[in-house]
Amino acid sequence: MNAAPQTAAVQTAAPQAVTVIGLGSMGSALAAALLERGHPTTVWNRSPDKARPLVDRGARLAATPEEAVAASPLTIACVLDYDALRTILDPAGPALAGRTLVNLTSGSPEQAHAALAWAGALGADYLDGAIMTTPPGVGTGQMMFLYSGSLATLDAHRPALEALGEPVYLGTDPGLASLYDSALLGLMWSTLTGWLHGAALTGADGVKATDFTPLAIRWLSAVTGFMTTYASQVDAGHYPGDDATVDVQIATIDHLLHAAAGRGVDNALPELLKSTMERAKALGHGSDSYASVIEALRKPAGDA
Amino acid sequence: MNAAPQTAAVQTAAPQAVTVIGLGSMGSALAAALLERGHPTTVWNRSPDKARPLVDRGARLAATPEEAVAASPLTIACVLDYDALRTILDPAGPALAGRTLVNLTSGSPEQAHAALAWAGALGADYLDGAIMTTPPGVGTGQMMFLYSGSLATLDAHRPALEALGEPVYLGTDPGLASLYDSALLGLMWSTLTGWLHGAALTGADGVKATDFTPLAIRWLSAVTGFMTTYASQVDAGHYPGDDATVDVQIATIDHLLHAAAGRGVDNALPELLKSTMERAKALGHGSDSYASVIEALRKPAGDA
Ligand SMILES: NC(=O)c1ccc[n+]([C@@H]2O[C@H](COP(=O)([O-])OP(=O)(O)OC[C@H]3O[C@@H](n4cnc5c(N)ncnc54)[C@H](OP(=O)(O)O)[C@@H]3O)[C@@H](O)[C@H]2O)c1
Ligand SMILES: NC(=O)c1ccc[n+]([C@@H]2O[C@H](COP(=O)([O-])OP(=O)(O)OC[C@H]3O[C@@H](n4cnc5c(N)ncnc54)[C@H](OP(=O)(O)O)[C@@H]3O)[C@@H](O)[C@H]2O)c1
Repeated sequence: MNAAPQTAAVQTAAPQAVTVIGLGSMGSALAAALLERGHPTTVWNRSPDKARPLVDRGARLAATPEEAVAASPLTIACVLDYDALRTILDPAGPALAGRTLVNLTSGSPEQAHAALAWAGALGADYLDGAIMTTPPGVGTGQMMFLYSGSLATLDAHRPALEALGEPVYLGTDPGLASLYDSALLGLMWSTLTGWLHGAALTGADGVKATDFTPLAIRWLSAVTGFMTTYASQVDAGHYPGDDATVDVQIATIDHLLHAAAGRGVDNALPELLKSTMERAKALGHGSDSYASVIEALRKPAGDA
Repeated sequence: MNAAPQTAAVQTAAPQAVTVIGLGSMGSALAAALLERGHPTTVWNRSPDKARPLVDRGARLAATPEEAVAASPLTIACVLDYDALRTILDPAGPALAGRTLVNLTSGSPEQAHAALAWAGALGADYLDGAIMTTPPGVGTGQMMFLYSGSLATLDAHRPALEALGEPVYLGTDPGLASLYDSALLGLMWSTLTGWLHGAALTGADGVKATDFTPLAIRWLSAVTGFMTTYASQVDAGHYPGDDATVDVQIATIDHLLHAAAGRGVDNALPELLKSTMERAKALGHGSDSYASVIEALRKPAGDA
């Protein structure tokens, strides 16, 4: 039993210095989580006044992006978009050589590929990431931070990245984090809009959103059960309709359209859902499960 | 301690006789769950051959709906729609006097009101319900069965109804079960379609649906956290955008549109979601949270 030496080893691994570029609501939350875990943290933002609360908590404010990047082996960037990122980092390029850039700015897979190539040309290690939470969830340890690209780069900076949230590694293709990010956000907007539509519908008859929502959340746990069943069907390309068929769903959605129309609630979303189901039916999936709707989504609506 | 007499009392409460009208996939599952719990079960279906597996398990097949209704104090009906229900039960009307009809057929709140009036005129107790699961979930005890109308009627038949799933009572308005049903199904279709869109998007780059889905399910548990926060905002009519604003979501959804377009995935759903967010922004909610999108849903898209 070597308890004492192991403890000593852990104690001697002082938190790594980290630079955070971008102090919007998300970048500020990232820097705060790093400070909270004792990482020496250097920050830079286009509008320097946003650094003040962080400087009060011990952050060092750099005068330029180049000075910021030079201050730490690891720079974490989180700004509005990739254009803003390049505007900021192009002049700081030489300082990135031999250092690591972890980019948590939202973008497309194609932008992640381009950023990797740009960083590689400068001699920097690059890891692309996506943050699956809002700022209040940063640093709580439970939220997913998606990463793709070099696993060695992730592993080299794991303690700092774990200060932000749980790292979830998706694979070597650097575009995967952005791709999953878009896919998961699409699921979020669909789910939230469907939920708000239900809250508007029941609210029209006097039900409070705080009464509807616990049932909606409980129901979503049944829906995730369907998702698990249907995921295997999607991979198999075979959609047995032994639980509920597309035909039954098409008949049932009319009750929703009717109830919403009678209450003055916008029906654009259920109408689109119905027409998507009808496209799956037209492709021969009327007796198949809802998973077969993916066949309609794979064909843009214009085609047929 | 009167353990022995209490046990005896429980043992003497023999399961109530129940009639099930409609033996489609759902009605058959209901009858099977009742038989499983030892309820003497009488069944009727327009196509009598569907009764065979249930008769093999001990059900009694009635020759007419009237004979079926007369066989039990409680009749549970689950057929395609309310028109089919009336077609079946109109001739059996007199037999319903002094008995209870629990209607689990999907319909609109208005149809539930009409069915209550119809049953009341016949001297029957009536309870409207909605089944929040597919047939395989019936009888597992975990799934929600929504009820609205007379709580006394629900309480009088609780053991039989508990054989089907967990009864969730919504209130005296008989239309509430149908209204919640439509609202929750709308949430399901939105969520499943958003998830399938994400599976199509990631699938285009070689990700298996069975790899994407566990992350999607984990992400949905974060989304239900947002729903809980936003439900209070909806009730208050005040949507502070301190986590993520509608403006930020509008900027971010372009990454999804771009990634999906580049992969030949249908963009009708994300485009509708974006235009709905833009309507919320046009109503003055750009700096508010996503909960403010309900204000756009409360105004049909034509209005402005
Ligand atoms: N908020 C969330 O819930 C959330 C969740 C996941 C991912 N994200 C992503 O995180 C990133 C940042 O989001 P946020 O919520 O922090 O946004 P935000 O509060 O609007 O902050 C935007 C940041 O980008 C900077 N910026 C914008 N345009 C710039 C330019 N042309 N040159 C230099 N800097 C520029 C801003 O600097 P100034 O302060 O000088 O304007 C600020 O630091 C985005 O990609 C977003 O999609 C956000
Ligand atoms: N399946 C699900 O996952 C699910 C979930 C929740 C709620 N529900 C609801 O449960 C109800 C039944 O669904 P299901 O899945 O059991 O559908 P199903 O398998 O298609 O069965 C339909 C039933 O309705 C009967 N029927 C249809 N038209 C009729 C008519 N004109 N006259 C007499 N009987 C008629 C059918 O009789 P025949 O056998 O003679 O055709 C059969 O018993 C629907 O309201 C549905 O929305 C279903």
